[in-house]
Parts: sequence; C-alpha cells; structure tokens
Amino acid sequence: MTRKPGSRPPKRPSNRPADRSSELIYGVHAASAALANPARTVQSVTATRNMAERLAEIIATAGLEPEIADPRAIDRLAGDGAVHQGICLTTQPLAQPDIADLPPGRPVVLLDQVTDPHNVGAIMRSCAAFAAGALITTARHSPQGSAVLTKAASGAAEHVPLIKVTNLARAIEELKDQGFAVIGLEGTAPITIDETTLPGPFALILGAEDKGLRRLTREHCDDLVRLDLPGPLQSLNVSNAAALALYALSRF
Amino acid sequence: MTRKPGSRPPKRPSNRPADRSSELIYGVHAASAALANPARTVQSVTATRNMAERLAEIIATAGLEPEIADPRAIDRLAGDGAVHQGICLTTQPLAQPDIADLPPGRPVVLLDQVTDPHNVGAIMRSCAAFAAGALITTARHSPQGSAVLTKAASGAAEHVPLIKVTNLARAIEELKDQGFAVIGLEGTAPITIDETTLPGPFALILGAEDKGLRRLTREHCDDLVRLDLPGPLQSLNVSNAAALALYALSRF
Repeated sequence: MTRKPGSRPPKRPSNRPADRSSELIYGVHAASAALANPARTVQSVTATRNMAERLAEIIATAGLEPEIADPRAIDRLAGDGAVHQGICLTTQPLAQPDIADLPPGRPVVLLDQVTDPHNVGAIMRSCAAFAAGALITTARHSPQGSAVLTKAASGAAEHVPLIKVTNLARAIEELKDQGFAVIGLEGTAPITIDETTLPGPFALILGAEDKGLRRLTREHCDDLVRLDLPGPLQSLNVSNAAALALYALSRF
Repeated sequence: MTRKPGSRPPKRPSNRPADRSSELIYGVHAASAALANPARTVQSVTATRNMAERLAEIIATAGLEPEIADPRAIDRLAGDGAVHQGICLTTQPLAQPDIADLPPGRPVVLLDQVTDPHNVGAIMRSCAAFAAGALITTARHSPQGSAVLTKAASGAAEHVPLIKVTNLARAIEELKDQGFAVIGLEGTAPITIDETTLPGPFALILGAEDKGLRRLTREHCDDLVRLDLPGPLQSLNVSNAAALALYALSRF
C-alpha cells in the first residue's frame, strides 16, 4: 500500500494483507477510467494504433506515451483469453483506505468469500451507482486476478475503494464502531429487507451463492434479512441480489 | 421445435427461427433442474461417480441410467473450459411457447441484442424470481452457446421459457395486442422508472450495455424510463439493471 507522507498511521493493528504488486488494467472502460483518475499511478500504456488514437487525449492528459502493439502482443501481456479490447495498462494498486476513514453517511458492501471476479466486478459497478463508500472483501477466498474484476467493474474500480481484510468479523465490528447498521442478506432470514428499521448508514453483507454467510459473519450482523420475491425460484445471481438489496435499503 | 400432436398451429406467420438441434446442459443446478422437469426430454446423462451418486434419486426418477465418466471425458463432451461440475446431459430443447399463449398477468422481459450468455443466464434467474412468463431475445445477436446460458441460469431455464424471435419489433406489437405495457429501459429516458403509470402486466426491454436499445425498438415502446441512482457512475451491468427494473416495476 502507498501511504502519503505525513498521513496518519493506522489506528489499530492492521487488518489488511501485505503489499500487492503492480496490477494490469485492460478493457476500454476500465483503462479510460484509470487514466482519468488522478489518484491512480499508471506505469505504462500498451495499445493498438486504433485504440491509442481513440484514447489519445486521455492518454496525453495523463502525461503518458502509449506503446503501440498488435492485438497478439497485447494478448501476451494481458494473459490468455483476456478481453482487453486493444488496451492494457500496468498500474500501481490504489491505496486502500482504513475503515475508520470511510466517508460518512454512505453505504458499504461486504462480501463473505464471494470468489467470481465477474460477479464482484458487477457488484463494484452497483456500489458506484449507489454511492457506496467501499467494497470490502476477505483477503482469502476472494477473486484471484484483479484485472478480470477491474474489467468487469467497467470503470467503477476508480470510484469505489476495494478493501481486503484478513478478518471479516473484525471489520464488521469496526463498521459498527463507526455507526453503521450491519445487515446480512440470507434466504432463510426471519424478516424481509423492507422490514429492517435500523437507523444510520448501512453495511450490507452477502455470502457466496452456495454457502451463504458463514456462521461467525451471521453472528456479527445487527439484522439478517431476506429478499421476498414472487417467483418460483428465488435463487438470484449474487450480483443481482446485491443490486436489489442496495436498492431496497436505499429507497431514497 | 417439438409440437405436441393435436396442439393448435401458430396463429400467424412464424416469427421464430427454425429447429434447434440437441442441446447440452451441465452444472449441478442446471442439470438437476432439467432432470426434475417433466417437460424436458433428457437423452443421456454423463457424470462422475460422485455426482451420479449425489443425484442418484433424481436421475432414477427421470428413468435414466447415468454413464459414469472421469472429469476429462466430461471436459471433452461439454467443451473446453466448460464448468460442468461433473455432470453433462444431452437433451431436447424445450418447446418455445407462442407469444399469444403466454400466461396472463405475468411480466415478460425482452433483450435487444444482449449477447453475453452469463448476463442472459443471470437475467433468466431474475425472471424466475419475479415470476416472469418468458424471456424473449432476438435470434441473431443473442448468446451463442445455450449451455453457458443454461448453466448461468442455474435451473431457471426450466421455469422461464426462452423465446427467440427473428423480428423484435413484431414481437413487441404482439405483446401489445395481448395487453402488455411495453417499457424500455434507457439511460437518457425522460422519466424515471417510478414515474411510469401504465396499467396491466409489463414487458420490460433492455438493450446491450454499450449500444442500448435500437431506434426501431425504442419507437415501439409505450414508455421509455431510466433508473435514477444516487452514485457517481450509473452504468450498471445489464443483468443488474434488469433485476432493479423488475423490482421497481413489480413493487408488489
């Protein structure tokens, strides 16, 4: 993690994994958003001639010179099967904020061992759409391959900090200390999401589709709620469940 | 398409493509649901010994004898990279209902050239959760590879008929004839989704993430509506947008 000189040190023993290495960002939306984000340090831009021309202004504004490459060379850089759309950046990971420093009054989403990077990327987009202050995941049993997640997030990774914690239960307690109402989504919960009446900003927790929330996670929630839907099969894709829960809890 | 002997012929010139061939279904949820669906003709079951034992009852109830195979043989049957989870079926495609025969009072979702099978599968799950009567896609510029879609639908394909039409505008007019209020979702629409006041069951139409609704599709809608969300980036994954729109329009 990069910490600005003079910024204050963490308030408590670190609940975060060690430094991550340089990360790839590909795909036109994800790369454009990264180039436009003043907080993001981009180390290199590799692009097809067409894409470099299309994004010339944003690349120049970022003070960078693109390396022109053919699509196969970008395949090799981005990795097999990567949907890079003709552009791949190498960047420094964004700094992870501390939970104590989250912006006040905005929701937070936590994921308990959700591993599919496409789903987590889609959830990050919903976080950006609902003005969430952060997306918090477990450091283990979380998506491998930040590039797939960042591509699926389609630019949202520049707006919503991703915080990886080693201990989710401790993160939940930190959120409670900050005044968040901690709401777990679970199919068998005793009340519906419309019935929760907790005050304050909310922290929404979702588990993996098959396993749901772990016992310890459930025990730390202020409320457990379910989505009540009219159809015959109530098993939603986890990113769809997250979007509905954010909508139902926001009802702005 | 299979038509039962004695069932009535289509009422108008067919708006559907020709017969589809036998289709693969893999993944534990999708395969279990297909085996349990009396309307689905399963031709063969290939499974690992473990999976065959886990699903023994449902396979036997379907009157089938599984062929036991090792995971690599199932890889070859299901296709490279298929997440088959140790089971792969060959089946007859389900019959497509006519739009004129859709169940009354239930919503319908239409997709205008949405091509990602994971997204369309997730939308099918949301259709099942919201008791939609059908999911309608264009025959061209729609997902290739029904198996990936059916796997992503996680069993919902047995509950929600997928209707592929050659002419989406004509399908919209057929829905209007049936009393549906046809609502298109579009980021730049003049009213929010909460402001639409059309009576009757609704038909919700979504376009591809980058292109949106085609002009002709837009022109056939009764209302064009947008989702108004509080965050800095309002570009949702298409399946998340579909789930939110279904929720907002259902408000049961």
